[in-house]
Formats: sequence, C-alpha cells, structure tokens
Amino acid sequence: MSRLVMKFGGTSVADLERIARVGRLVAAEVAAGHQVAVVVSAMAGQTNQLVAWTDGAGTAAEGLTPSDDDYDVVVASGEQVTAGLLSMTLRHMGIKARSWMGWQVPLLTDDAHGRARIDEIPPANLEAAFAAGEVAVIAGFQGVTRDGRIATLGRGGSDTSAVAIAAAIGGACDIYTDVDGVYTTDPRIEKKARRLAKISYEEMLEMASLGAKVLQTRSVELAMAKKVPLRVLSSFVEPGEAPGQGTIVCDEEEIVEKRIVSGVAYSRDEAKITLFGLPDHPGVSSKIFSRLADANVNVDMIVQSRARATDAANMEFTVGKRDAGRTIEIMRAAQADIGFEDVALNEDVAKVSVIGVGMRSHAGVAKTMFGALAEKGVNIQVISTSEIKISVLIDAAYTELAVRALHAAYGLDQL
Amino acid sequence: MSRLVMKFGGTSVADLERIARVGRLVAAEVAAGHQVAVVVSAMAGQTNQLVAWTDGAGTAAEGLTPSDDDYDVVVASGEQVTAGLLSMTLRHMGIKARSWMGWQVPLLTDDAHGRARIDEIPPANLEAAFAAGEVAVIAGFQGVTRDGRIATLGRGGSDTSAVAIAAAIGGACDIYTDVDGVYTTDPRIEKKARRLAKISYEEMLEMASLGAKVLQTRSVELAMAKKVPLRVLSSFVEPGEAPGQGTIVCDEEEIVEKRIVSGVAYSRDEAKITLFGLPDHPGVSSKIFSRLADANVNVDMIVQSRARATDAANMEFTVGKRDAGRTIEIMRAAQADIGFEDVALNEDVAKVSVIGVGMRSHAGVAKTMFGALAEKGVNIQVISTSEIKISVLIDAAYTELAVRALHAAYGLDQL
Repeated sequence: MSRLVMKFGGTSVADLERIARVGRLVAAEVAAGHQVAVVVSAMAGQTNQLVAWTDGAGTAAEGLTPSDDDYDVVVASGEQVTAGLLSMTLRHMGIKARSWMGWQVPLLTDDAHGRARIDEIPPANLEAAFAAGEVAVIAGFQGVTRDGRIATLGRGGSDTSAVAIAAAIGGACDIYTDVDGVYTTDPRIEKKARRLAKISYEEMLEMASLGAKVLQTRSVELAMAKKVPLRVLSSFVEPGEAPGQGTIVCDEEEIVEKRIVSGVAYSRDEAKITLFGLPDHPGVSSKIFSRLADANVNVDMIVQSRARATDAANMEFTVGKRDAGRTIEIMRAAQADIGFEDVALNEDVAKVSVIGVGMRSHAGVAKTMFGALAEKGVNIQVISTSEIKISVLIDAAYTELAVRALHAAYGLDQL
Repeated sequence: MSRLVMKFGGTSVADLERIARVGRLVAAEVAAGHQVAVVVSAMAGQTNQLVAWTDGAGTAAEGLTPSDDDYDVVVASGEQVTAGLLSMTLRHMGIKARSWMGWQVPLLTDDAHGRARIDEIPPANLEAAFAAGEVAVIAGFQGVTRDGRIATLGRGGSDTSAVAIAAAIGGACDIYTDVDGVYTTDPRIEKKARRLAKISYEEMLEMASLGAKVLQTRSVELAMAKKVPLRVLSSFVEPGEAPGQGTIVCDEEEIVEKRIVSGVAYSRDEAKITLFGLPDHPGVSSKIFSRLADANVNVDMIVQSRARATDAANMEFTVGKRDAGRTIEIMRAAQADIGFEDVALNEDVAKVSVIGVGMRSHAGVAKTMFGALAEKGVNIQVISTSEIKISVLIDAAYTELAVRALHAAYGLDQL
C-alpha cells in the first residue's frame, strides 16, 4: 500500500465549498488504495488577519526574535481551523479521519519562532493512524519546539511541512494549488506558456528562488535532499473530474529528454543599490557585505566595475525591496569607514532569469539570451549566473517584453 | 505573595484596544504584588464564526458525540489567538508573560467533546511560571483529554477554566465582564436595580441557573465546592481608573446582613408543554419523563393538575425552547403508549424568580410574591420552589412588569 501526502494551500481551502472539493480529491486517493496524509494551510486571508493582530499587539512579523514565541501561538491557529474542518468533512463523507496539530504529530522544530526549521518527525503516531485506516489531516506551517511551544515555519511553510512528512513516512508528495502545474513561464504574461510534464529538483529550486511562486524554495530543497517524489497539480477541479497530470518534480536522471532551457522566471521584488567611487584597496567589499550580513540583509546579484584602470570603482548589488531603505541607511552610516563617494537606490528594476539543467552541457545559452534582449532594445544592468541559470537585471518596464522574447528565443512555446 | 486568577470574557478582549486595556488591568495587579494567571475567552464573535464553519462542515454544535473531537480543534482556536495576543501585549508593556494552551498547562479533561469536564489540573507548570516571575496567560474554554486531544468545556467554559485554575493554584478568582457586578435584577429592565456588594454561592448559582447571565452556572458550582473566593467586576475602565469593587461571591456565613430576597431573575428561554387527559394510573409520569431523559431533554418545572377528582389529569412542564419541537415529536410518538388525549406547546412564556438565602428562615416570601403579581394582574401558570428561590411561569408579555413589581415588593431598590 503506497503512501501519499496531499498538500492544499490557502486558496484551495478558502471556504467550506472548496474544503468539500478537497474532501472529494482525498476520497479519490483513499479509494485508489493509498494511505493518505493531508497537509493544509489556513483559509486564504486568515493568516494575514492574524499577522495584522500580532502587529497591533506589538510583535511585528519582521524582526521576530526567539523570544517571540507567542507570535506563533496566534498565527498557527489558522491551520488548526482548516485541519479540523477538513477532518470533519471527510468523516461526514464516511471516511475515517482525524486532525493532527504540529505538537500532536509531532513536528519537532528548533526554537527560531516565526521561521523555525524542522529537526525531526517521529513517525510512530502517523504510523498508528495509518494502521487504524485513518486519513491524517495535519495542520501545515506549524510544529512544536523541544520544550513544548508552538513554532511556525514561516510563510509558505506548509509546503515544507508536507515534504518533511512525506520524507518521514516514506511517501510521495502532491502539492495542490491554484494552477495545474509548473509552467515554462508565468501564463499571465505569456499566453503561449506550456505546462512542463517534468522538471528537475535543481531547476524547480532555481524557478522558486527566482520568482516562480508555485512552490516554496525550502520545500524543494528538502524534497531534493530526501528524494521525495513531488508533484504540483490543481485543486480546482469539478466533482467527478480528475485533477490532471500536473508537473512532476524529480531527479534530473529521470528526465529522458533534457531541455537546454526549461523556463523563464522573473521577480520584481528586488532593488538595486549602487556605490560610487570606491577606494582601490583590498577589504572594501568585505566591509560592505559584512555590515549587511550583520543586519540580516540578503544580497543577491553583485557586480563591481571600473571604466578605466585609473578610475575609482563602482559597486552594484541587489537586495529585497523591503530591505532597500535599511540598506541605504546602513551604507550611509558606514560611508566614512568604507570610503565611497555616493550611494544610489533604484527600485525600478526586475530580474529575469532563464533556467535549465541542459546549460551545463550546452554553450551559447547566454549568447541567445543577450541577443534576444538586445534585439528588443532591453538594456542589461547586472548579470549573474550559476551552473543552470542566467539572470539579468533590467528596467522593470521591460519585464513582460523580456519574458516573452526569451520564451520565444528558447522555443519554449513549441514544447 | 497572594495568587490571583483574572478572567476576561469575549467582549473584554473584542479588539486590540480592549486587549490593551486588559493589559493595564493585569499590570496593576502585578504591581500590587500578586502572582497572576489570566484566563481569556475568544474575541467576541469569533467563536460564533468557528461554530458556523463546523456546522457547514457537517458537525453541528448540538448533538455532538464523543467522536466529534475535531469540532473542538476548530472552536478552541479562538482562545488560542487571544492568549497569544494578550501575552505579547503584556511583554510589550515590559511585563514577563507567556501564553498557555489547555494542553500545555495541562487542563486534563474527560473526552466529552464540546462539553468536557475538567478532571485535574497538575499545578507544576504554572508553579514554575510563577517562580520565574511570569504572568501565565491561559486560553480559556479548552483542555486536553488523557490521549492528547483538544477538548472544549462548552459555552461559557472560560469561567469554569478560571475557577478550576484558581482552585488548582490556591488563588482567588476575579471574573471581569461588561457589567460592574451582580445586580438585584437586570438593569436594562429595572433602572433602580442595585449592585450587590456580596452574594452567596447558593444565591449566585440560582441566579445563574435562572437567567442572570453574569456567571456560568458550572463555574459557580465549582467555586462553591472548592471554596474559591470569586468576584465579578467590569473590565470597561479607562486608563488610570480602578475597576471598582464589583460583587464578591462567597460563603453565606461571610455575609453579615442577610437579605430575605437578594435578586429577581428571569428567563425567556423556556417553553411550556401541556398534556391533556392523562389516564389515572401509576407509572404515567415515569413513562413521560423517562422518554425525555432518554432523548437528553432537560425538564424544569412540572405541575400535575386535576380540576375535579373525577376528571382526567393534565400535566404541564417546561423545557428549553430549543428542545421544544423535539419534545412535541417525542410525545406524539408516545401518545398511544402514554395514553393522553392531546398535547399543546406554548412558547410565549417567561420564568420569573426571586432568590434569597433568607427565605430559609422567613415565612411570607411566597405570599409577597403572589400578592405583588396579582396586584398587577399577572396570571401565574406554573410555580416551582426550592429552599432559596421561588419561580413562576407567566405570559412572556408580562415579564418586565413582573420583574419591576417584584423588585419593588421586596424593597430591592432601597438596598
């Protein structure tokens, strides 16, 4: 008897009607002979309401410290509600079920409240539930610390819960969402975007990090590390209708026909900082980035440039838009010490990326990219690359144009 | 160092502003040197929303069975939210605090989900919190069964939580609500109603059972059994303002000047059932009431009457309005077996009661009651009495008139 973890996000459980639809999807898997654990998010909108309340009570979601354990008590309540409601819905349909909170499973975490990491999931309780023929309906996004306090895993943590549970019980993991799979790019921008039948963990990881919002980065990392077979599919199916094939996320080896480029991702969440007139001696970069690291600012793309050997150097880097103001303050405070002449902020930028494991063995990917962008008159501000992706920072106004040009340039509309 | 449990109901924690007000009241007791545990209800309206969702998911609040454990998972989430929010509010004020869910304290209950009873509260965890100088902010209304499932105590259960915790830690219990004490009658009906400085447990118990909604009946029973000093007072005080004296609920012996009648209560929650033409042989009453008991229908007042010795007997009794339809069905189904001629339902009735421990030693209380009602032309349909109360069932239209007449007749406006 095979085991399956089904995960449903907030829009899939947004109201009782949708919870009933989820019930039917679960019933179909039970009927197919699976032992099923279901992981649910809070009803869409609930977590935002709860977070707003904690803000009002003096504990902002940003800047949580380990002592902000009560924050997690409040925000974890949303998943508790949906787990209870789905379990009773299943029982009402005649399916044996019960709800499980993080502390009941238990999902043991560290005590980094608000962004806890899962340490361990002892499988004994879930094993007993399966042995009793029960569907385990598990509140996502939450666990419990070793000293018995509720801990949440951070935004999107329900995906991570689902993958970790699948790893613990030795099952596959189906992530149900409001789209029917992973696409070559955002279909809202490019109508010719195609659903990918398969994508490798590495590619999915880059897609998630680079702006595709289908899966949480941490959950993909975990699935890759634990070799959990992952599938993305839509919960928005009518009664009697099957949910379709979705997209399978798997090892690169399992993908027979490797594409050079699998997808085009974009993100408008970054801001560009430029430091002008940096002094020309060692240790300058270290000073800049250690100050940002100390303040927990994540830096993404970095470029250092010098027009002529005799010129002072300029440094450009990107940070998350919400850290932009703070970054400027930190730089200004350190101006005398670092010794740059001026600092500028540009929030009007977008990062567009092409991703594909095939890049490893194919030259010319960058050439195609830069050529396609040049042809449309898109100016590239910063470039960064990894083994399987190339990202460029461009003027935000050109985002859609660039995405469409790249989608066509790599033939993604002809999959 | 004395210990104090402060309990705040749903209207007292209805929004962040009120939670801040609660924070100031707690801070004042901490400053006065008390070790404080706070018990909170869900924000006003939240529990109704949660119960509505469970209804929609197929588990109605009425008719819960022990297997409806998921119902409790959903409805207990409301108190979880307020406990977390109040704890962070206190911390924000510089007071050491943490939230406690029922399963963390733990409040161990039986497994009668939806109306669980508290078995035991091991005090060790709360003792440790006090030793660490922390305010314990406890989610009311909820506990945990021996096998680790969330259980709720039923409507108004937060009062019971508070009293049980006070008993477990050896403290007094202050119940904060939206009125500043227990009144001689409902001030919305009789403007001359006075706040009682003290009331005995027995009287409070009758008042609560007979319609005064200030305290939950079970919590008063428990306070009486465990000799927990109880006080009712208002949370609606402005910054810097003290909450007033409220009403102390205590042993009869502690009340020096005993009144004959302490209060007038009323309830419109009952319906009257009349069975006409009952056969004149033994066992008829037993047949009627055992059928109702089997169906979990609570019967309150009962009167059997016969105009002349040769007439068939009539039986009148009252049940809760929400059980009225079911009662009629049960009676109709049993008509042949019981042998009555007809059954009638009257939902247009009210029960008005006078309560006072002084009745035990004073004659003439009933005479005053019946005289006052007769003078206003109020017809009495059913009478029932106990050692310390007299209740009459009247036409609902006369409720306010009867309450005012009785309030005056016993001189309650001149306390």
